[in-house]
Amino acid sequence: MANLEMVRHLAISTPSKIVLLVADGLGGLPDPRTGNTELETARTPNLDRLAGMSMCGLTTPVAPGITPGSAPSHLALFGYDPIEYEIGRGILEALGVDFDIQERDVAARGNFCTIDANGIVTDRRAGRISTEKNIELCKLLSRKVSIPGIELFVVPVKEHRFVVVFRGDGLRGELTDSDPQKEGKSPRLVEALVPEASRTAALANDFAAQARKALTDSHPANMMLLRGFSKHPDLPQMSECFKLKAAAIAVYPMYRGLAKVVGMTALPSGNDLAGEIEALKRNYDSYDFFYVHFKKTDSSGEDGDFQAKAKAEEDLDAAIPQILALNPDVLMVAGDHSTPAMLKGHSWHPVPFLLYSKWVRRDKVTKFCESACAGGLLGTFSATDVMTLALANALKLDKFGA
Amino acid sequence: MANLEMVRHLAISTPSKIVLLVADGLGGLPDPRTGNTELETARTPNLDRLAGMSMCGLTTPVAPGITPGSAPSHLALFGYDPIEYEIGRGILEALGVDFDIQERDVAARGNFCTIDANGIVTDRRAGRISTEKNIELCKLLSRKVSIPGIELFVVPVKEHRFVVVFRGDGLRGELTDSDPQKEGKSPRLVEALVPEASRTAALANDFAAQARKALTDSHPANMMLLRGFSKHPDLPQMSECFKLKAAAIAVYPMYRGLAKVVGMTALPSGNDLAGEIEALKRNYDSYDFFYVHFKKTDSSGEDGDFQAKAKAEEDLDAAIPQILALNPDVLMVAGDHSTPAMLKGHSWHPVPFLLYSKWVRRDKVTKFCESACAGGLLGTFSATDVMTLALANALKLDKFGA
Repeated sequence: MANLEMVRHLAISTPSKIVLLVADGLGGLPDPRTGNTELETARTPNLDRLAGMSMCGLTTPVAPGITPGSAPSHLALFGYDPIEYEIGRGILEALGVDFDIQERDVAARGNFCTIDANGIVTDRRAGRISTEKNIELCKLLSRKVSIPGIELFVVPVKEHRFVVVFRGDGLRGELTDSDPQKEGKSPRLVEALVPEASRTAALANDFAAQARKALTDSHPANMMLLRGFSKHPDLPQMSECFKLKAAAIAVYPMYRGLAKVVGMTALPSGNDLAGEIEALKRNYDSYDFFYVHFKKTDSSGEDGDFQAKAKAEEDLDAAIPQILALNPDVLMVAGDHSTPAMLKGHSWHPVPFLLYSKWVRRDKVTKFCESACAGGLLGTFSATDVMTLALANALKLDKFGA
Repeated sequence: MANLEMVRHLAISTPSKIVLLVADGLGGLPDPRTGNTELETARTPNLDRLAGMSMCGLTTPVAPGITPGSAPSHLALFGYDPIEYEIGRGILEALGVDFDIQERDVAARGNFCTIDANGIVTDRRAGRISTEKNIELCKLLSRKVSIPGIELFVVPVKEHRFVVVFRGDGLRGELTDSDPQKEGKSPRLVEALVPEASRTAALANDFAAQARKALTDSHPANMMLLRGFSKHPDLPQMSECFKLKAAAIAVYPMYRGLAKVVGMTALPSGNDLAGEIEALKRNYDSYDFFYVHFKKTDSSGEDGDFQAKAKAEEDLDAAIPQILALNPDVLMVAGDHSTPAMLKGHSWHPVPFLLYSKWVRRDKVTKFCESACAGGLLGTFSATDVMTLALANALKLDKFGA
């Protein structure tokens, strides 16, 4: 890939417009009974026609054989090397509940757990308490735990999971987990992985001690465990490295949060694809890069629902003419990773990709699916090249060297 | 490629089984009279059928245009970057004669040579003395040369070639050769390339001085030269970086040694492919990764015997059903490099590869050969990705990032 530093020197601001439509978990695997993947089963006339006018390929999200989480796979599509730029798990969890993470914050994932009279963890998930109970306990912790000089946020996520954010000067994220990862052990003391983090470690242990007291009568959720301490990743911003005024259109907080981390403005996006397309139309004149996120392809794949995934792809297909009607200079249809219904989860398989612009060499692909895209002009290529190709095709990159 | 460190963090131990069948020197070049390579000439119905159920491609062993030796090309298939992890020539020679190299050892390649009255090398190979003579001279050196505090092993290889192993504390391999590489020059003094190696340099020079005395009456082999001083490479072990219990099935010592260097157990493997397949069956329940090495494709290629190489590939083909009958979760057929009969030696040409598993996207390749594999889903890809793909398809890798 062209590295960010090179692209930063070449990128120029122009009025041309780029739309990156990300169908989460887009890639699939064939149903053994038919030999066809979800995309090969779905009827997608608009995507197929678009593929015929585009340059196609398959993206490798991180590296061959590596199954990515949503954060690294999105960072790659946004042009950031996902091995170089890692986003901590605490930060991701905070983004996922739409918490407005700031520069001074350290975030950790928390889970309520059960301990016995000797302080041994007997259930790391406190019997998966209800989200209602979780909300109540987070309020209790917010009220009862306090650390001088630090602003504390205890935010419920779901069932036994919550987020703690410590806000204050000089905090560090290089800390070990208090979660022992196994039942039958005591919660661990949080330790600093670098000397500069020792004060934050002490604060985290203070938090844990106070939380234990506060939760003492809340059996089965009579303790909590922390892991994935991390700070805001401080990534180069898209405005600076790509000279883009970038907007994110996404329903789910996690993806809005990821986009904000690279400097996109997260726009009000409604509740579904129709709402997202409306948001795109409404804001089309105000930005020159749009990341549009479509979730249903992933969630149906995770559910193992082959037909629902194919149906989601048909829904996506139906939105294509509305996007094309805006006449973008570059339109890309991509996936952050594969989520084959056959595997009921993310996978390592390369992901169908197309790039439509006036300046592509078209290939012979006329069906937007795994097997056809494999024969496209882009072949199987790194997702980290997507952004450079988009900028090039939008004529937003100067010449390298003289 | 996904680096070892990343894979180490993601790898999990599961009961699934991987078989990596390596046909040494598998790739070839067309006979100009027929336009067909060895593989395209051989009748390989089983490999062709397997290709039809697999994902195919061509592996690049080290880098485009680079002809690899057996060590780097095998390391790549085993998942180790062959540019980062080098195995010294002395060590390789020791592995090749099945010498049990230990951590404290420094090994060097030796060759008997002829010197004149002034000590000038007149024949670097001592007229290629017989292996019998070599064995006799190695015994002589073992008897006559001794260095206090050091255990010495002088092991014959073939004709004029032997191995010396120095065993002791604090020995180093960073030494220059005593071999001047040209006739008409004196043997060189061994020099330390780092200060810590100066004691080992002195020991090597002591060995050379004593050897000269001991060999004085053995004309034409009245001296010896040393090169390729090196230590055990201390590579990350497969058990640790891939969480595999790995076994090697190979007839030749060199390949058994290479496999041991990365932590495989070298199993008793008989004397031929039939013996190797028996070893695979016998040990199938006890390991979860099997490297099976088939030599004849390489040796016939080195001999320039096109038909013999095609025949060897037919022999390989005949073994496929027996391997498939074991029902491995992942079966790969690979070559470490090409050895085209037309070139009578190793070459840089990418090597046919197939990966069969329940979770691959099959491609349209239905013939296991160079030209068909070039059109496979994997295209031409780095051999260092083979191991990650195998682990992914055996569902032995966790997700990267959240």
